[in-house]
Amino acid sequence: MALQEVDFETPDFDVYPVRHDLASATSGDTGIHITWSDGWESWFHFLWLRDNCPCAECVHPVTREQSFEIMSVAEDLRAAAAHVSGDGALEVAWAGDGHRSRYHPGWLRAHCHGEASLRAPASTRRLWDAGLDGAVPSFGHDTLLVDDVAALRWLESLRDLGIALVRGVPVREHGLVPLIERIAPARWTNFGAIWNVDVSLEKNSNAYTALELPLHSDLPTREYMPGLQFLHCHANEARGGDSLFADGFRIAEALAAEDAEAYDVLTGEAVEFRNTDPDCDYRYRVPMIRLGPDGRVAEVRIGNFLRGPYDVAPERMGPLYRAYRKLVAMTRERRFQIRFRLAPGDMVGFDNRRILHARTAFDPGTGYRRLQGCYLDRDELHSRIRILDRRLRARDMSPG
Amino acid sequence: MALQEVDFETPDFDVYPVRHDLASATSGDTGIHITWSDGWESWFHFLWLRDNCPCAECVHPVTREQSFEIMSVAEDLRAAAAHVSGDGALEVAWAGDGHRSRYHPGWLRAHCHGEASLRAPASTRRLWDAGLDGAVPSFGHDTLLVDDVAALRWLESLRDLGIALVRGVPVREHGLVPLIERIAPARWTNFGAIWNVDVSLEKNSNAYTALELPLHSDLPTREYMPGLQFLHCHANEARGGDSLFADGFRIAEALAAEDAEAYDVLTGEAVEFRNTDPDCDYRYRVPMIRLGPDGRVAEVRIGNFLRGPYDVAPERMGPLYRAYRKLVAMTRERRFQIRFRLAPGDMVGFDNRRILHARTAFDPGTGYRRLQGCYLDRDELHSRIRILDRRLRARDMSPG
Repeated sequence: MALQEVDFETPDFDVYPVRHDLASATSGDTGIHITWSDGWESWFHFLWLRDNCPCAECVHPVTREQSFEIMSVAEDLRAAAAHVSGDGALEVAWAGDGHRSRYHPGWLRAHCHGEASLRAPASTRRLWDAGLDGAVPSFGHDTLLVDDVAALRWLESLRDLGIALVRGVPVREHGLVPLIERIAPARWTNFGAIWNVDVSLEKNSNAYTALELPLHSDLPTREYMPGLQFLHCHANEARGGDSLFADGFRIAEALAAEDAEAYDVLTGEAVEFRNTDPDCDYRYRVPMIRLGPDGRVAEVRIGNFLRGPYDVAPERMGPLYRAYRKLVAMTRERRFQIRFRLAPGDMVGFDNRRILHARTAFDPGTGYRRLQGCYLDRDELHSRIRILDRRLRARDMSPG
Repeated sequence: MALQEVDFETPDFDVYPVRHDLASATSGDTGIHITWSDGWESWFHFLWLRDNCPCAECVHPVTREQSFEIMSVAEDLRAAAAHVSGDGALEVAWAGDGHRSRYHPGWLRAHCHGEASLRAPASTRRLWDAGLDGAVPSFGHDTLLVDDVAALRWLESLRDLGIALVRGVPVREHGLVPLIERIAPARWTNFGAIWNVDVSLEKNSNAYTALELPLHSDLPTREYMPGLQFLHCHANEARGGDSLFADGFRIAEALAAEDAEAYDVLTGEAVEFRNTDPDCDYRYRVPMIRLGPDGRVAEVRIGNFLRGPYDVAPERMGPLYRAYRKLVAMTRERRFQIRFRLAPGDMVGFDNRRILHARTAFDPGTGYRRLQGCYLDRDELHSRIRILDRRLRARDMSPG
């Protein structure tokens, strides 16, 4: 349905279809009660309504940031009058300063306090195990650069499954950059913004050797552990060097079910992750499995070669090692793993705070192997998903 | 005291003075018991010792990252023999594979599980109020560039007080960069890596207007809210435009003491911070006062103009507004604020996750005002502090 042909101000850059009309507005003791054309009822607190007045005096018309200050009205602010206008808006005249506010019905319905969906957004997270082998969503590089629908599907796969493949990324220095910048510029770390995974003599990470790298997270040594990692294959001619992935959240869930004691230790006991070289010394103390305020797994950190010496109390050392070994043993079970071999032009992206990655050892004498990679944060992923989604909805709603 | 003149391997890049000798080593059921020359006793779990073997086979000699895997030994690993060597090391021969480990006494003492100081590092945090007015630590730009002791003091001030001033930063485009890169490269955000705060026609933030900006945090709209912010003054000729700061942790502490109900709401109720423009849409839901796992305040986010419409349950709306207004009212109390005027060449740095900053409105008709700024993360601050500290300790211990 198209926006009504009226001159409504909305306080942000989004679009709000008007699917239901306002039927009535009644001012009560602490807020305004609304009934809608479909029988739905809403209630809005006076301060909330005043706080969200979209007029040009309250919201800077260019930045769309609020200039109104909640402290400039009384705590017991009330509406002097509230009614539905001829063109379908909620209009409120405020007691005290006499300010007038006008609310777009599509915006108002989308922000109804009573819409339970607003307060508990359904999780889009989809955990996986070895069943995903051979079925990782795959996208074409050139399409992603120009097609917003494909780009949105790609980013949703990174958000929900935590992994996605792209084929046909140009095999050249920084060939991954144009696609990455569809999201945001790569995040700098002490390894640079764009880094090469090949055998280097000046090593400051085991990644730059031919060693096997068991399933791990990158940079668990930071409080701000990178949210996304991308690895773009330039060459993979050596014997060995396959890629393995596992869903750390799925493993954590299985651990909770199969060894609750180990799960309690790993979610409760903070340990130090550490990465040092002659010019840096990153350390962060955190449980290997970090739970969010909702009690769900929010982050998994595993890095055998990125741990400081455990410094828990002596009597906790035995249980900690038992739990840690249990977790590592589970990461090595086939039931959780997917495995594939990157070919030149392939790029894998994954949620570095959830998905564990590994490479098998390779023999640098049998051929050249080179990946180029970078990091991004989840904030950028989520922002880009919202923008693509906003753009597609605006397109759907446009008359043309 | 200098390191003993022996060829000890240590597993990291740090230096470990030998202040006490090993007196005896006795192997028990689950670990090794050590007595020291000063009577101190230590106990080390077998798996912990094996996990921390510093030999070239277990730790990559160049990267100093572990190549040993804890899964390659048995869970009930035991020492076959343990003794103090002639040159003062703890030497252990392991049952099973017969691997031999050799531990540096300085390193071992520094990692004694029983040293309570290891497990509960004293907080260096120093909260402040208006009493800091006129007493913000101040440093000279040119000295900081070359003097590690001064640089360490500067960074410790940023860590502990959350604020520090630097004078004499060259007033030119990107004049702050060489000093910032003493820590790390500036962090990119959608405002760029180095950004200018002046009156701009193409605005995407109220910062780029002449409006008053009340006390706030920058980018509370990100999960990964920047840890440090630097503002370098190029010109401040307009009437108005003074700088205000307040310690958000100090205010949170006062709120807990003076209005426990508001404190409970603001530490418990997640609200959305939001910043959108035509090309980005950052949102993050988190309590305004976020507590760490230890129950202490870990982060404060305030940004009147960076909030999404509150979407808590209807019955929580009144208490939330009451608590939010109380917090904002406290930020405006003189007892918490310090105020100064930046002059050309001054640069203020502050902990953006703790310290609130503000500027008074200014009149762009009365003169030019321009700041140049950037962000960094706490991870980089802490790494640089450890490196400077490591370097100074190594210098103290060197014979020359």
